[in-house]
Amino acid sequence: MKFFVDLNSDIGEGYGAYKLGMDEEIMKCVTSVNCACGWHAGDPLIMDKTVKIAKENKVAVGAHPGYPDLLGFGRRKMIVSPEEARAYMLYQLGALDAFAKANGTKLQHIKLHGAFYNMAAVEKEMADAVLEGIEQFDKEIILMTLSGSYMAKEGKRRGLRVAEEVFADRGYNADGTLVNRSLPGAFVKDPEEAIARVIKMVKTKKVTAVTGEEIDIAADSICVHGDNPKAIEFVDRIRKSLITNGIEVKSLYEFIK
Amino acid sequence: MKFFVDLNSDIGEGYGAYKLGMDEEIMKCVTSVNCACGWHAGDPLIMDKTVKIAKENKVAVGAHPGYPDLLGFGRRKMIVSPEEARAYMLYQLGALDAFAKANGTKLQHIKLHGAFYNMAAVEKEMADAVLEGIEQFDKEIILMTLSGSYMAKEGKRRGLRVAEEVFADRGYNADGTLVNRSLPGAFVKDPEEAIARVIKMVKTKKVTAVTGEEIDIAADSICVHGDNPKAIEFVDRIRKSLITNGIEVKSLYEFIK
Amino acid sequence: MKFFVDLNSDIGEGYGAYKLGMDEEIMKCVTSVNCACGWHAGDPLIMDKTVKIAKENKVAVGAHPGYPDLLGFGRRKMIVSPEEARAYMLYQLGALDAFAKANGTKLQHIKLHGAFYNMAAVEKEMADAVLEGIEQFDKEIILMTLSGSYMAKEGKRRGLRVAEEVFADRGYNADGTLVNRSLPGAFVKDPEEAIARVIKMVKTKKVTAVTGEEIDIAADSICVHGDNPKAIEFVDRIRKSLITNGIEVKSLYEFIK
Amino acid sequence: MKFFVDLNSDIGEGYGAYKLGMDEEIMKCVTSVNCACGWHAGDPLIMDKTVKIAKENKVAVGAHPGYPDLLGFGRRKMIVSPEEARAYMLYQLGALDAFAKANGTKLQHIKLHGAFYNMAAVEKEMADAVLEGIEQFDKEIILMTLSGSYMAKEGKRRGLRVAEEVFADRGYNADGTLVNRSLPGAFVKDPEEAIARVIKMVKTKKVTAVTGEEIDIAADSICVHGDNPKAIEFVDRIRKSLITNGIEVKSLYEFIK
Repeated sequence: MKFFVDLNSDIGEGYGAYKLGMDEEIMKCVTSVNCACGWHAGDPLIMDKTVKIAKENKVAVGAHPGYPDLLGFGRRKMIVSPEEARAYMLYQLGALDAFAKANGTKLQHIKLHGAFYNMAAVEKEMADAVLEGIEQFDKEIILMTLSGSYMAKEGKRRGLRVAEEVFADRGYNADGTLVNRSLPGAFVKDPEEAIARVIKMVKTKKVTAVTGEEIDIAADSICVHGDNPKAIEFVDRIRKSLITNGIEVKSLYEFIK
Repeated sequence: MKFFVDLNSDIGEGYGAYKLGMDEEIMKCVTSVNCACGWHAGDPLIMDKTVKIAKENKVAVGAHPGYPDLLGFGRRKMIVSPEEARAYMLYQLGALDAFAKANGTKLQHIKLHGAFYNMAAVEKEMADAVLEGIEQFDKEIILMTLSGSYMAKEGKRRGLRVAEEVFADRGYNADGTLVNRSLPGAFVKDPEEAIARVIKMVKTKKVTAVTGEEIDIAADSICVHGDNPKAIEFVDRIRKSLITNGIEVKSLYEFIK
Repeated sequence: MKFFVDLNSDIGEGYGAYKLGMDEEIMKCVTSVNCACGWHAGDPLIMDKTVKIAKENKVAVGAHPGYPDLLGFGRRKMIVSPEEARAYMLYQLGALDAFAKANGTKLQHIKLHGAFYNMAAVEKEMADAVLEGIEQFDKEIILMTLSGSYMAKEGKRRGLRVAEEVFADRGYNADGTLVNRSLPGAFVKDPEEAIARVIKMVKTKKVTAVTGEEIDIAADSICVHGDNPKAIEFVDRIRKSLITNGIEVKSLYEFIK
Repeated sequence: MKFFVDLNSDIGEGYGAYKLGMDEEIMKCVTSVNCACGWHAGDPLIMDKTVKIAKENKVAVGAHPGYPDLLGFGRRKMIVSPEEARAYMLYQLGALDAFAKANGTKLQHIKLHGAFYNMAAVEKEMADAVLEGIEQFDKEIILMTLSGSYMAKEGKRRGLRVAEEVFADRGYNADGTLVNRSLPGAFVKDPEEAIARVIKMVKTKKVTAVTGEEIDIAADSICVHGDNPKAIEFVDRIRKSLITNGIEVKSLYEFIK
């Protein structure tokens, strides 16, 4: 039996004169990048450049639509209607798609950002509206979403290509949801432990919940960060450890059906 | 010999709680609509609805990208670089294209808005950058631009599909440019005169300049407005007069090669 | 014993090319206006003009800060921190204050808008932060807030000038909160009934809850709307009925200590 | 005879999750800081914090209003009307003033930013409108503007407190204007030369133009930058050289009448 997994990172998160993240560096370590689309971060020049360098680095690129909240970096919970959720997603997905076309490439996937990601993953009506928009836009595009979420299940039920995402540095509850950031066990701080957990998730499809149970988890992609040199170094270690442990690291489009 | 022309109007210019224009009414009178893309006006919900009602009314729809200036409705001159011009155009074109896809239709054309339209039509480097972006996005999409402008000529030279646009209610200088809005002769206020001019432009490819000369002009599309009931009524009169005078009114895609 | 009450309306809610509300007309019917400050609606030119016409009409003017959500008109729930709430309020309050200074007048009050109003009225930490900002800005400015709310009580406890606000067209729960907009009894649709309720609130400090109980309520100001001709007419009827029933209609600064 | 000058730097130029500049460090080297007001950069939390740390460091703080162009960092030329210029300035000035009040301090000055600074300094109608707004807001606030500009002269004629600003690292034309950034001689690259020029400007009120002439120049304040460690180091050298050469470095309010 052969194991494989995708490594993904957010990218293109600057805005105008503002820079954020080490895009050129993280590009060397991952297999998929989620490009901000101008609402919570990113702007047209940055989007164009990000798609271009992703193509040059042979890294698959996807859209990373966020809430209309540049001031809060798309991390603040906002109540938007299902219709708004669908339209906000489509707007940003289309905008990035224009740069994919202009650079002679295609978008591999879509992954919602921040508060949009969290709310749409589990709120049924919002998830349904986003899924409908994705179906209408392009049935071939891969939806990357929270492993085990309503959105993941419903996306598969509709026949969409779904990649289930896990987090190397986060704790899980017994029901498969992430431990709230304000509670004990929310973060896995030891890099060795984080790496061991990731390998286990990929190879056994299990993870140890914060309460001790062994729970099921699907890990098509592992979310990592490229904010600073230390983060880049950690991603590089994860990648190398995966390979050393017989897990092939490759882009989603190569294995998501 | 058979005559034909397209009638176009801006549309989808509301924003959030704000309404602007009589979209449902103007839709009945024109053959092409230019849909605002969220920067100078428009938002994702409005864009989605506009594309949908255009399709229902069998009116061709195009993207109408503007400057990042909602406060000034995209009418204020801003100095943007050629790279920015290309990227701003692509971003908005792609965003609207997502709603075309989601509604099972295609964008017929792209027409820049306001100050973006005026500057890009004649400033060589900016026009070149926008044309390059259009070529990269989709060689089949029609570019609607100022009749006789650098952009029109260069677009054709590159093999793009170009529709030359004229204005029913504006005066022309001897060199084919529009009379500045602050000068005498900028506007043709008498509806009968405006209609007579339009018919002449379509049938003879000539217009009388503000200085009295007969000059050449190409009229693939006539720009009209749907802001208020009186404007709608005027558009209806133009349309009927064109037909009465043996000019077929039809969408650009039916005759622009 | 003498009765009196203030009538307040939101105002200055256009943006750039967009118009909203009948500002000139509502100005004739109310004693206080809440001017949008550019975040959920309003822009600097509109703010300047609104303060100017309020002064000309001898109507007291106050700041109406909203969430950073022009697209949602400040009506969408957003999770902002207490520090953000205080800073967002101060920013907009100061911005409007500049136009008060420039027009040789003073701001009478501050009233939060939409979702910001609803959340800050009852969420303790957010209310405390906003109150702290108001105290720091100007101890004399009047805070207009939901009658009976935590914010009203705590504002008074701190020695601030607080105006308790009621709604002519809304139903109340037995605990003094408003009936949720989606539930039966949320709206008082009959104008006569609405007027009778308002008179009772001012004269007896009681209102009949949706569940039938007579509950206590303080009514320093009544919130009315100026969106359309019918709304204006209704406000005029309220005002005349109040006067006919021996209730003086006057601005908050004349009676709030 | 005693010499003195103010050193000023832009500050508070982050936005939401974005950081820019070394505010804490530059604060130690200058006597006045120009705080971004949320339009081209800056946000309410940053403005509050910036005013607070300026006060703690006993550095005078002023408003730094920019164009509504966060995407272009307020550096792009935009055509705004005189009325808009006045209102945009007032809005941002008032917003920052709220944080001055909330922190128990006062604004010392106002200096326009980027393209707004450049256009308003020399375009008569725009300058007049901005000056009118400043007069209406507070006759005591100091206007910092381009040395020798129309705005400087007209501000003084109106009896406003005006601080004339010079640039350590820029070349001057024979008429006292700055050499265009795209032309030879625009920048003084040698730090020693820049420092010598600054000392000469303060002591002799003369500077050598790019064409060789000795021209008159008033230097109430010197504009410096705090973008990176090297810039901070350069500012520190300027400050020390000024002192060594018998020039006192102090805030504008101490000497502008």
